[in-house]
Amino acid sequence: MILDLKARPLDMETGRNIVVLHEDDAKELGLYASDRAKLATPKATLVAITDTTTRMVRSGEIGTFAEVTKALDVNAGDVISVTPVPRPQSIDFIKKKMDGQQLTDKEVYAIVDDIVAGNLSYGEMTAFVTAQYVRDMTMSEIVALTRRMVESGDRLELEVSPVLDVHSIGGVPGNKYALVTVPIVAAAGLIVPKTSSRAITSAAGTADIMEVLANVSMSIGEIKSIVQKVGAVLAWGGAVRLAPADDIIIGVERPLGIDPRCQLLASVMSKKIAAGIDHLLIDIPAGPGAKVETIEGARDLAHDFMNLGHMLNVRVETAITYGGQPVGYAVGPALEAREALETLLGKGPGSLIEKATSLAGIMLEFGGVASPGMGRQMACDILNSGKAYQKMREIIGAQGGNPDVKPEDIPIGKSETVLAPYDGYITNIDNQRIVAIARAAGAPRDKGAGLKIILKKGHKVNKGEPLFEIYAEREKKLSDALALTKRRPPIKIESMLLEKLTHRPLAG
Amino acid sequence: MILDLKARPLDMETGRNIVVLHEDDAKELGLYASDRAKLATPKATLVAITDTTTRMVRSGEIGTFAEVTKALDVNAGDVISVTPVPRPQSIDFIKKKMDGQQLTDKEVYAIVDDIVAGNLSYGEMTAFVTAQYVRDMTMSEIVALTRRMVESGDRLELEVSPVLDVHSIGGVPGNKYALVTVPIVAAAGLIVPKTSSRAITSAAGTADIMEVLANVSMSIGEIKSIVQKVGAVLAWGGAVRLAPADDIIIGVERPLGIDPRCQLLASVMSKKIAAGIDHLLIDIPAGPGAKVETIEGARDLAHDFMNLGHMLNVRVETAITYGGQPVGYAVGPALEAREALETLLGKGPGSLIEKATSLAGIMLEFGGVASPGMGRQMACDILNSGKAYQKMREIIGAQGGNPDVKPEDIPIGKSETVLAPYDGYITNIDNQRIVAIARAAGAPRDKGAGLKIILKKGHKVNKGEPLFEIYAEREKKLSDALALTKRRPPIKIESMLLEKLTHRPLAG
Repeated sequence: MILDLKARPLDMETGRNIVVLHEDDAKELGLYASDRAKLATPKATLVAITDTTTRMVRSGEIGTFAEVTKALDVNAGDVISVTPVPRPQSIDFIKKKMDGQQLTDKEVYAIVDDIVAGNLSYGEMTAFVTAQYVRDMTMSEIVALTRRMVESGDRLELEVSPVLDVHSIGGVPGNKYALVTVPIVAAAGLIVPKTSSRAITSAAGTADIMEVLANVSMSIGEIKSIVQKVGAVLAWGGAVRLAPADDIIIGVERPLGIDPRCQLLASVMSKKIAAGIDHLLIDIPAGPGAKVETIEGARDLAHDFMNLGHMLNVRVETAITYGGQPVGYAVGPALEAREALETLLGKGPGSLIEKATSLAGIMLEFGGVASPGMGRQMACDILNSGKAYQKMREIIGAQGGNPDVKPEDIPIGKSETVLAPYDGYITNIDNQRIVAIARAAGAPRDKGAGLKIILKKGHKVNKGEPLFEIYAEREKKLSDALALTKRRPPIKIESMLLEKLTHRPLAG
Repeated sequence: MILDLKARPLDMETGRNIVVLHEDDAKELGLYASDRAKLATPKATLVAITDTTTRMVRSGEIGTFAEVTKALDVNAGDVISVTPVPRPQSIDFIKKKMDGQQLTDKEVYAIVDDIVAGNLSYGEMTAFVTAQYVRDMTMSEIVALTRRMVESGDRLELEVSPVLDVHSIGGVPGNKYALVTVPIVAAAGLIVPKTSSRAITSAAGTADIMEVLANVSMSIGEIKSIVQKVGAVLAWGGAVRLAPADDIIIGVERPLGIDPRCQLLASVMSKKIAAGIDHLLIDIPAGPGAKVETIEGARDLAHDFMNLGHMLNVRVETAITYGGQPVGYAVGPALEAREALETLLGKGPGSLIEKATSLAGIMLEFGGVASPGMGRQMACDILNSGKAYQKMREIIGAQGGNPDVKPEDIPIGKSETVLAPYDGYITNIDNQRIVAIARAAGAPRDKGAGLKIILKKGHKVNKGEPLFEIYAEREKKLSDALALTKRRPPIKIESMLLEKLTHRPLAG
């Protein structure tokens, strides 16, 4: 069954190949919404997902979304021959996963291939991540998934070893450690081609922070030559096509608010293998309000990462770090870039120094330049000697930034200070509320927006003392963030209860 | 956070409220694809699902799909105030179902309400049916689901009892029994307001067949007055808003090829309760190639239907019928309408007479007009007396058709006969291949298209004898259907093997 229809380009883009048929033509072809059709012109053919309408296009026409218009290079009125195409077999494999059965390597490959080729609809991909979430995957399925996600994209090949990286699974605000850890490790002569993401739901991703200091959108070739020159890079992973299935799947998971364990493992590992990493440190922040709330949960995840690494020939170590409150004091791209530079210059906050040097220490031992047990001390020495700062200058320069930039040169927004409403002890800082306020202030889009915490957990505070400062580039955002602070205060101050507990003799 | 954007109506319709924001504005609002935003104009407000783009609309503009343009009554350039809206809570309940937990009535209600209001994206609804498929639902969840699906639409209220209906869960071609069963039952004085669907994946739904004889698109008021006049109707359910959630959910299930048991139960029952039915006969065709393949599977489903009916105050009986090959000989709207009329005129095929009178018999006993065990005989008497035909004439007339129509008056397509390629016994007729050929010939859209089987299972056939005829309204369709027949022959003829088996003495 073939129907010749006249192209009608539509001003719509979705990242997938979609066409719209009039219901009469669709019926004629036996096609329904979310079916697939082969489109052929004298010049090209492609498979697109079909939508149906009674109004948008007339019978005899075919509405082409921007991706299809471009791929087929059609103009209004050009004839496109439309043939129904059977559903891809990967839908049967998704259904098999729904049924709780284990998929073979080939079945997993087919799903990944169809995701990357744009052959699966949004609903079908949702069914896949839902099935992953409900049924989970065995380690051998995750290995196949990871492998194919790597194969489906580009690769960074440095032809040396070890190639190190550190990846934090996130969930804790102010987590700018990488801007300190990476230069320490690179200063010791190790290779660290760090790719990272922009903020999705947080106030600042590593790429957003680094972008305050230098360019982060580089090609694979540029990344390679920078790493060969200075030993490290801090690049935005989104600018290169490493494991592209991952980016598509994230877009499906996010609206549902699910992050299936098996997909998390495959996503992290595929991005890193595609970037040529063979020694990977995974940082799992744990604590109330972090992505992983308990130490036990963090340990399970750590073991999964190490097993998966073992099966894929990547040496993986894991660190469980404290994620119950922000790392350091600054939250938001420019404020975090300032804090990271201050730390490299020897004036950083304790929690950030501790986290950055601990992780760097593990990497130094892992990479064979520090003796077992001596990594942390070596990391502190490199940081204190100014060598890490020098390395960061090199990295910034190589990425087209100004190596001479001083923390105080970095523009930040106008600020407003939030005061303690009464006396007491700070018993909790709510990660999610902190992030919400920073975002209300304009982060991550407005680089100078965010907040700076003045007092952290456990501190005694008197009424009227400053608790934190909110920064915003625009008046309206500042007042939005202040209003949100009033509605949902991020810092909990308790007086009577905590004091009683503190002074009470231990029972038993 | 509010942004005032200029409306840019887009020529797109999807049945849901969708707007497209430029990525910069979306970022500013903290919105991603598939999030939700409140749209406000001086005249109206509504909640829409947001999509993002870098090209379709400029920053400062908001692309409005047809549904939104209409609901807000905006023109290009009108200002719409956009505020992010938290995800509906029903997504948490969908996630709870994914986690395998039982939902409360209120949680089920929230999901149904959000589906009907258009508050859930296609992906979120897919996650729901996937969770239903994987986790199933308890009877009390199904009761809540059915109840809310009924409440979310219009209702047909006849203020009499019993009100009967018969519903076949489908999957067998040529299933035109309702056009015989309904007039038999109505001729006995019972009330049968039958609503039915058009073909989705089959060659002819009851509504498609009846449409050959009369109008089937009627309002609830029209259905009511026809039933009050002649005791029965054969209407298309899609023209009225009975349990509209069902239609939306079907659109989500179909592309995935899943039909979760719990949703099937709720769908059928909600449509029937909304139509005022209090005595429902469920026909479950069972056999290879039917929706339910085994008798055991059919029995389980039958019990589920009866339990659900019990909890919703609907008396349910079930009949398991033979679904291993087509019912009667004709497949396709006009051919089936002819065969149904012929049957009412006393010249029908045995399998159709048997099925139609068996089901009618159960309904006659069920409705209290036949003594237990006597229904089938009464049904045959009514059919043979011509009273069922007279009732069908009344129904056709009431629905605006020509009551005097003769089977041979009904226009059908041009035909081509398919011959037996060799001698043997017909050991199988493949339901799915039969449907595929009828659809290739143009059914259900071309009413005169389809096929007519000449010899059914068990018959001996000689090479060159006619097996079946294909009918089509268009040359091209006829040759398409013949080509498909060659590629995938629907009728299996076996010689040696079956004869051997037949003549072999029983072992043991």
